[in-house]
Amino acid sequence: MIKAGIIGSTGYAGAEIVRLLLQHPEAEVVWYGSRSYADQPYADVYRNMFELVDDRCLSEDMDELAKRADVIFTATPQGLCASLVNDEILKHTKIIDLSADFRIKRPDVYEQWYKRTHEAPQFIQEAVYGLCEINRDSIKNARLIANPGCFTTASILTLYPLVEEGLVDLSSIIVDAKSGVSGAGRGAKVQNLYCEVNESVKPYGVTSHRHTPEIEEQLSYAAGMDYENGQSVLINFTPHLVPMNRGILSTCYAALKEGVSASQVEDAYRRRYQDEYFIRLLGEGNFPETRWVEGSNFLDIGWTVDPRTHRLVACGALDNLVKGAAGQAVQNMNILFGLKENTGLELVPLFP
Amino acid sequence: MIKAGIIGSTGYAGAEIVRLLLQHPEAEVVWYGSRSYADQPYADVYRNMFELVDDRCLSEDMDELAKRADVIFTATPQGLCASLVNDEILKHTKIIDLSADFRIKRPDVYEQWYKRTHEAPQFIQEAVYGLCEINRDSIKNARLIANPGCFTTASILTLYPLVEEGLVDLSSIIVDAKSGVSGAGRGAKVQNLYCEVNESVKPYGVTSHRHTPEIEEQLSYAAGMDYENGQSVLINFTPHLVPMNRGILSTCYAALKEGVSASQVEDAYRRRYQDEYFIRLLGEGNFPETRWVEGSNFLDIGWTVDPRTHRLVACGALDNLVKGAAGQAVQNMNILFGLKENTGLELVPLFP
Amino acid sequence: MIKAGIIGSTGYAGAEIVRLLLQHPEAEVVWYGSRSYADQPYADVYRNMFELVDDRCLSEDMDELAKRADVIFTATPQGLCASLVNDEILKHTKIIDLSADFRIKRPDVYEQWYKRTHEAPQFIQEAVYGLCEINRDSIKNARLIANPGCFTTASILTLYPLVEEGLVDLSSIIVDAKSGVSGAGRGAKVQNLYCEVNESVKPYGVTSHRHTPEIEEQLSYAAGMDYENGQSVLINFTPHLVPMNRGILSTCYAALKEGVSASQVEDAYRRRYQDEYFIRLLGEGNFPETRWVEGSNFLDIGWTVDPRTHRLVACGALDNLVKGAAGQAVQNMNILFGLKENTGLELVPLFP
Amino acid sequence: MIKAGIIGSTGYAGAEIVRLLLQHPEAEVVWYGSRSYADQPYADVYRNMFELVDDRCLSEDMDELAKRADVIFTATPQGLCASLVNDEILKHTKIIDLSADFRIKRPDVYEQWYKRTHEAPQFIQEAVYGLCEINRDSIKNARLIANPGCFTTASILTLYPLVEEGLVDLSSIIVDAKSGVSGAGRGAKVQNLYCEVNESVKPYGVTSHRHTPEIEEQLSYAAGMDYENGQSVLINFTPHLVPMNRGILSTCYAALKEGVSASQVEDAYRRRYQDEYFIRLLGEGNFPETRWVEGSNFLDIGWTVDPRTHRLVACGALDNLVKGAAGQAVQNMNILFGLKENTGLELVPLFP
Repeated sequence: MIKAGIIGSTGYAGAEIVRLLLQHPEAEVVWYGSRSYADQPYADVYRNMFELVDDRCLSEDMDELAKRADVIFTATPQGLCASLVNDEILKHTKIIDLSADFRIKRPDVYEQWYKRTHEAPQFIQEAVYGLCEINRDSIKNARLIANPGCFTTASILTLYPLVEEGLVDLSSIIVDAKSGVSGAGRGAKVQNLYCEVNESVKPYGVTSHRHTPEIEEQLSYAAGMDYENGQSVLINFTPHLVPMNRGILSTCYAALKEGVSASQVEDAYRRRYQDEYFIRLLGEGNFPETRWVEGSNFLDIGWTVDPRTHRLVACGALDNLVKGAAGQAVQNMNILFGLKENTGLELVPLFP
Repeated sequence: MIKAGIIGSTGYAGAEIVRLLLQHPEAEVVWYGSRSYADQPYADVYRNMFELVDDRCLSEDMDELAKRADVIFTATPQGLCASLVNDEILKHTKIIDLSADFRIKRPDVYEQWYKRTHEAPQFIQEAVYGLCEINRDSIKNARLIANPGCFTTASILTLYPLVEEGLVDLSSIIVDAKSGVSGAGRGAKVQNLYCEVNESVKPYGVTSHRHTPEIEEQLSYAAGMDYENGQSVLINFTPHLVPMNRGILSTCYAALKEGVSASQVEDAYRRRYQDEYFIRLLGEGNFPETRWVEGSNFLDIGWTVDPRTHRLVACGALDNLVKGAAGQAVQNMNILFGLKENTGLELVPLFP
Repeated sequence: MIKAGIIGSTGYAGAEIVRLLLQHPEAEVVWYGSRSYADQPYADVYRNMFELVDDRCLSEDMDELAKRADVIFTATPQGLCASLVNDEILKHTKIIDLSADFRIKRPDVYEQWYKRTHEAPQFIQEAVYGLCEINRDSIKNARLIANPGCFTTASILTLYPLVEEGLVDLSSIIVDAKSGVSGAGRGAKVQNLYCEVNESVKPYGVTSHRHTPEIEEQLSYAAGMDYENGQSVLINFTPHLVPMNRGILSTCYAALKEGVSASQVEDAYRRRYQDEYFIRLLGEGNFPETRWVEGSNFLDIGWTVDPRTHRLVACGALDNLVKGAAGQAVQNMNILFGLKENTGLELVPLFP
Repeated sequence: MIKAGIIGSTGYAGAEIVRLLLQHPEAEVVWYGSRSYADQPYADVYRNMFELVDDRCLSEDMDELAKRADVIFTATPQGLCASLVNDEILKHTKIIDLSADFRIKRPDVYEQWYKRTHEAPQFIQEAVYGLCEINRDSIKNARLIANPGCFTTASILTLYPLVEEGLVDLSSIIVDAKSGVSGAGRGAKVQNLYCEVNESVKPYGVTSHRHTPEIEEQLSYAAGMDYENGQSVLINFTPHLVPMNRGILSTCYAALKEGVSASQVEDAYRRRYQDEYFIRLLGEGNFPETRWVEGSNFLDIGWTVDPRTHRLVACGALDNLVKGAAGQAVQNMNILFGLKENTGLELVPLFP
């Protein structure tokens, strides 16, 4: 059994890791870290875990945890993982960081979008961006995984094959994304109260959302650009908040290069994803809905080519807490420990 | 592997059986019955099943199905199972009926509340009321299981130990229940449209809901009454529709008999349910919420005794599609086939 | 024009007073009091008021306000109004208090349920309980109005005629109520976050909710009891939180006295409410739904008598922010200033 | 008093006209037309109207209605208005058609997108597109108003000033829109059931939605193109369904022409809309949310210019049943009858 520790186990993403590991045949949680609820029974914080988890929450002592755990998930605010990680810890254990600390290879870009100085730049190069379907080979031997964000997983994977095969005009990419509310976390803020969110839809972080550079970086790699030396795709990314608990839908627009046909688009998707368990290609003209992936680790992708504007419209839908966070983190764990990639993750989407 | 057929697999309860059996290690679905969608790919009706179920929907030919399946789940409107069942079928296979056809032992009561003549009265006595925690011994050898309703499972189990031990005044029982919308089924009715249900709560079937006699009958047995000869507890049962997909909360009121103490109430609950995997006793003063059981087969129970009115207020919460329908049906299947009762049902509640 | 000041104008109830007074032909808001947002433009706090309200929020200086306003609405936490009110203020202005400070005539009961010492007991007797349909004569000349709570308005008015006419067994009353989330206020608490409330229903304050004694007191008056000397109806009151913004449904149960008929019940309702503009009697067998009163000052009442148990089941539905708070407050203002009672309150319910 | 008849008064848009006219000081409803509910009391279909509307529903006899009404609102499926309108009717009365029948000046475009032959092409030229803020002068003397669609009102008005002033590249326009469910109407369809829509977001009509040509036509006029002779802006328009009752948010993307500055964008908006009562410019960097306009006739607009991509992102939010349907229809009526444009429409948005 893989011994897993979770820093930030009482946030929504952390709690989802708990849910997934409880149903995982090869892993167990040995440390329920929580700054806010230390010493309280975990099941008092999440009553769904009543009689399923008997443990109490523990502090965030990562040095101690590193001795007890084979893998540590850090589901914490920006900066925490970077402030705690060190070589000693990485000698003992693997870290899968669900924050953005190690997602971006250029510290200047990180600092510009996150408005903070990076506290552990020495680990940035080593960290592997844990987008499993793209980077699984490098993930295998990593010590430190930067688990991708929710919007970014949906957006990058939806656009990746087209960018990789050079089918779209890189200056034309727009991602208009819609998210459920759990993505905003469990902090007590007026703006996330039921009555503030319910019966409304709103854009936020327009032209300034932190997932923008993460998407741009990965698409730059897909395009073969020299990102670390300043080359980069530039996109518009606009997230919207939708009154639902879970789910992300990324609606992606891109101008096809002249002469590119609908069948080339289809081929690009099939080539990349045909054999991926967690990516379900709905085919041209069929579009995903977040309800069909709820609770599961699937990413559903559908698309069409508009003959009038010669533009591609492609949509990706996933559960932000699963494939967009905890599920992908467990998928990374499976790769790290040589398990079959979907071990413990063959969750059937819950509907309705 | 247990071969299971489902009649009515494209209703919400039927689809939930599919979800559960896909994750069940000892059973597989061999027949996706659906009158409305016959010949269509099942995954076209429920897109969450895309790439998980390749089968097409089949007709509702129960004779043919009986030859292929070890167990048939009928998740169909009232009357259908009664109109199809016969001895030949029951020789080949077990039936777990999710409709109300065989739940009520007195045909006159059935006909009075359901406004229809019973089409197979000869099987009523044989049928076992599949409330697993109460009737598991008789379930073991049954051929025909009457799977309890959603409101009734929550309400009966919440009141059972108190009635059984004679702690409450039987003429004082009131059940005020709240249900999510999936209980209303997938039929296209104006009253169940999103805009009609959202942002509202309403009572329905006041003093006339069909789950009333089902609750009364089982509580009568608990009280040791001679129900079949006309003795019966009489209760008020008022269901309400709440804008959420899943979940039932039964708030139960009963006057305690003179001299009955809070600790006697607690003892009654503990004696009955302490060792039940699927019943979680939250303890006095702790009340259940439907969110903590969503997607799981748990029934959470909490209660308090009001010293001012000497009345018990007890609440039970479950997921109407799981413990209130498909989950309990699979639990019955597990009992019927000698499996551990929670096989394939150790589902961790999904939150949020 | 009546000059109105609002203390607590940035809570949900306070904001609803603003909405109503903006559409009121005889009143205007002259003071937007807010402790949390003092000096900020009101429309920055409630963007629906953009270009409709140009004022900035002011402090809660009630002495100053009393000089400028003809009426002060206090939509504030428990205790604030009692801590500020004095004779000088009441000489200048009328106060309509939306908190519970002056609702309960017995300070010992207040202190028992609210766990706080009353700070202005000298005004308790003078204060008039502003349940308009019952107390409008005493309201006319009052200086200090205790505006009823949301659950209480729905529950008392639904039961009042029956208690008043002696049709029900007073020891048998149970009120099972369901509320939208705006009743919980705009404070930033984890328990009121979207993801915590959505897709769930839960009971709270079981046997201990503060609206219990308020209902009991008014029903005691209806029954002709000597409440202030210790006589009182005792009831069970159980509120539930429902995932919707607005709306309260009170489902009331009471045993009818022997010999009482359904037509006596109907007559009692008609006698009391036939001519009330804001109370809509749906008639026997028709039940209210909160969606039909949203945004309006209506209370819809429906009921039935169960011949099997000889129990009455009656339901009242209102919008907790309107008839359950701000609307009734404005109705009280209309009475205080000699206006037609529905002035500015002829709001058509918004659906869907 | 203006006598108004409504064909299709029991759909959501028709019912909203009823709500608005009940609160309108200069108009009254004289005909509640409804094919589905003819002869039934209107308040039985919409219980919010109990005791407010005593009328029964009438047939859809437009000839008879034309004799009794000064204005007829047709809130009906595509084709109905075109099949009924004739010169005799237009001599007696004005028609405000909420369907798409007369919105598009090119019958070939209409037939291509609506897949039906136009039944009254002779009235297409005469009909005035009732986008009040743009066309109020021509509306004044019209007999037949084509009331704009919900998505189109939001999208056209958000982009209009920029297109009109030539600030954006016309080939670059993308509109990604989000709608509440009431836009789908009150028909009993599985896809609009509560459980199908709740907790999900989905795109629909991708590259094929019928509001596309309507937006394109009006933007073509704004750009000074010769639309009727085949010139046209081409856009991508992608609507999404969001689990909420009301509200539309249009997120619009367009590349600014070289050299165009953020202040030119601001100026264009101010010039066009500064004095418009119903258009609220939130200013650069402030974005609208549908909750702030619910129940009102406002359109809120916010925008920003992304310096990285030199692209404009502009959002418009409205209530699809008010400014997107019934409210704009009443606004058109006010113009037609020489009333102040916001008569009866000074509705304060309802929040929460």
